[in-house]
Amino acid sequence: MEQVYDRVALIGLGLIASSMFWAMKRDGQLVGEVAGFARTEATRETARRIGLCDVVCDSAIEAVKDADLVVLCVPVGAMGPVMEEIAPHLKPGCTITDVGSVKGDVIRTVTPHLPEGVFFVPGHPLAGTEHSGPESGFAELFDNRWTLLVPVEGVPDAEIARLRAFWERLGANVDLMDADHHDLVLAVTSHTPHLIAYTMVGVADDLRRVTDSEVIKYSAAGFRDFTRIAASDPTMWRDVFLTNKDATLEILGRFTEELFALQRAIRTGDGDHLHAYFTRTRAIRRGIIQAGQDTAAPDFGRVKTGPK
Amino acid sequence: MEQVYDRVALIGLGLIASSMFWAMKRDGQLVGEVAGFARTEATRETARRIGLCDVVCDSAIEAVKDADLVVLCVPVGAMGPVMEEIAPHLKPGCTITDVGSVKGDVIRTVTPHLPEGVFFVPGHPLAGTEHSGPESGFAELFDNRWTLLVPVEGVPDAEIARLRAFWERLGANVDLMDADHHDLVLAVTSHTPHLIAYTMVGVADDLRRVTDSEVIKYSAAGFRDFTRIAASDPTMWRDVFLTNKDATLEILGRFTEELFALQRAIRTGDGDHLHAYFTRTRAIRRGIIQAGQDTAAPDFGRVKTGPK
Repeated sequence: MEQVYDRVALIGLGLIASSMFWAMKRDGQLVGEVAGFARTEATRETARRIGLCDVVCDSAIEAVKDADLVVLCVPVGAMGPVMEEIAPHLKPGCTITDVGSVKGDVIRTVTPHLPEGVFFVPGHPLAGTEHSGPESGFAELFDNRWTLLVPVEGVPDAEIARLRAFWERLGANVDLMDADHHDLVLAVTSHTPHLIAYTMVGVADDLRRVTDSEVIKYSAAGFRDFTRIAASDPTMWRDVFLTNKDATLEILGRFTEELFALQRAIRTGDGDHLHAYFTRTRAIRRGIIQAGQDTAAPDFGRVKTGPK
Repeated sequence: MEQVYDRVALIGLGLIASSMFWAMKRDGQLVGEVAGFARTEATRETARRIGLCDVVCDSAIEAVKDADLVVLCVPVGAMGPVMEEIAPHLKPGCTITDVGSVKGDVIRTVTPHLPEGVFFVPGHPLAGTEHSGPESGFAELFDNRWTLLVPVEGVPDAEIARLRAFWERLGANVDLMDADHHDLVLAVTSHTPHLIAYTMVGVADDLRRVTDSEVIKYSAAGFRDFTRIAASDPTMWRDVFLTNKDATLEILGRFTEELFALQRAIRTGDGDHLHAYFTRTRAIRRGIIQAGQDTAAPDFGRVKTGPK
C-alpha cells in the first residue's frame, strides 16, 4: 500500500491521538514519521515511556516542522490558540485537520489564523470511550466507525481525497457533511445524550436518602450505562457544550418537551400513551444493530453465557 | 447441596422466569420439578419446544398445584389479578414471591388475595437485558447481581431464609429492604434512567431534519447506549411507571431541576460550573467498577483490542 503522508504531527496526545498513532503503526506503510506534542510535561513523559509517537517534541512549533499533515487533537476551546501559535511554522502545502466534536466553532476560530497555501479540512472521528489520556488509545478504535470530514471552501478535492484515504486506512468509514448539519446531528446523537447522562448521575450523587453505596450496588438495573457516558473527559465536554450551544439548547428543548409529555402521562395514568411511546423506540435499536454500529448480544455482551 | 424447594411454579415465562429455570437446571439439586405457565399459547409452545420448564401447563391453576414456591413473573400490573386467580388453589404452607420492579404496589394488590397459611415474600432481581420473551433467558443472568427481598409482616424468618438460599443458589447476592425504600432506590437507579432513555430515543426519532439513517449510522457517539435501554419491554415498563408513580415523579423533578441548571450554564457560558459538574460524576463510575457491577474495559468491552 502507498504512503499517504510523509510526516504527521499530532498536537495533543489523548485518547484520539494515541489511537491514531497505534492505528498508523498497525498499517505500517500509511505514513513516514509521526511527531507528537502534549501541553504537559507529564503527558510527554508518559508518551516517551510507552513509545507513543516516533518523536515527542517539547513544543507544538517543533512538532509541526516539515509536517505534511497536522492533526489538532486538543479540546475544542483550545483549537484557535494552538492554530495561532503554529501558523507561522507550517510547511507550505500541508494539510491541517482536527478531531473536535464541534465543527462550526472550530472553523470560526481556526480559519482566521490559516496561512496562504495551507489546506484546512476539519474532521471528526465518531469514536471514543469513557477513558482519556495518552495511555487510553488502541489501534482498533476507529474500525468500522464513521469519521466525518467537513471541508471548507477553497480546498482542492485531491487534498480532501487524501485525508479520506488516510482515515480509511485507520479503519474508519468516511462521510462528508457541512458544519451546521454536523453540529445538529451530533447534538442529537452525542452532545444531548452526554448532558443527560451527566445530569442523571449528578442527581443520584446528590440524593442523600439514597446512599452512594446503594446507587452503586444496584446500578446494574440501568443506571450504570449512564455512568459510563458520564465518566468522559470533563474539559472536552465543557468545551463541546460551550461551543455547540445553539444546537444543544435546541435539542434539549425538544427533549424536555417530550419528557414533560411522558411525565404527564405518568401523573394521569395514561398507560396507552406510555406503551405506544416505548414500542416505537424499539425499532431504532434494531436499525443500529443492522447497521453494524452495536452488538445484539444482551447487555452489550457483558454477560458471559455458557451453553444451556 | 440440599434441595431448597420441591416443586416450583413459574407464572409468566419471559426473560426472568426463563433465566431462573436455566439457573435452577445449572444447579441441578436446588429444586425438584419446575412447572411453568404463560398466558399466550404461542409462548407455551415455544417453552415446550426449547425445553423451558419440566412441565408447561395450560393454566396458572394447574401450574401452582402442589407447588412449594410460586414465582409471579408477570408485569407488575398483572400481579393482583393473577394472585386472585391462583389463591384458592395454593398448597397450604407454600411461599409466594414475585420478580416485579416495583414493590409497594405489588404488595398492595397481591396481599388482599393471600389465603391463610401462605407466605408472601416479595422480591426483585436487579438483573435483565434489553431482550424479552421465553427465548431470551440464560443461566448466568443473576450471577453476582443483587436480588432484593422485601418481606411483609408475619412471615417466619425461616421462610425468608429459605427464599434467600434459593436466590443465592441461582447466583445472586441477596439484600433485604423495605418497600418504600426499594421503590425510591429503584426510581433513581433504574426507573428514571429508563424514562430518560426512552425520551431521548423518541426525540431522535421525531427529528425529521436529522434522518433516521444518520441517527443510526452515527449512534456510536453516545446515543446507542440509550437505545439499548429504550429497547426494553414496553408492557413491563408501562406498568413500572404507572405503579411507581410517586417516586418516579419525585426523581424526575430533581432531574429536570438539575438539567435546567446545566442548560442555564450552557446558555450563559459558565464553563466552570460545567467542568465541576462533569468532574464530580466520574467518581461514581469508579465506585461501580470497584463494586464489581460493571467492567472497566473501554466501551463496555465492545471494542476488541489486539496487542499494541
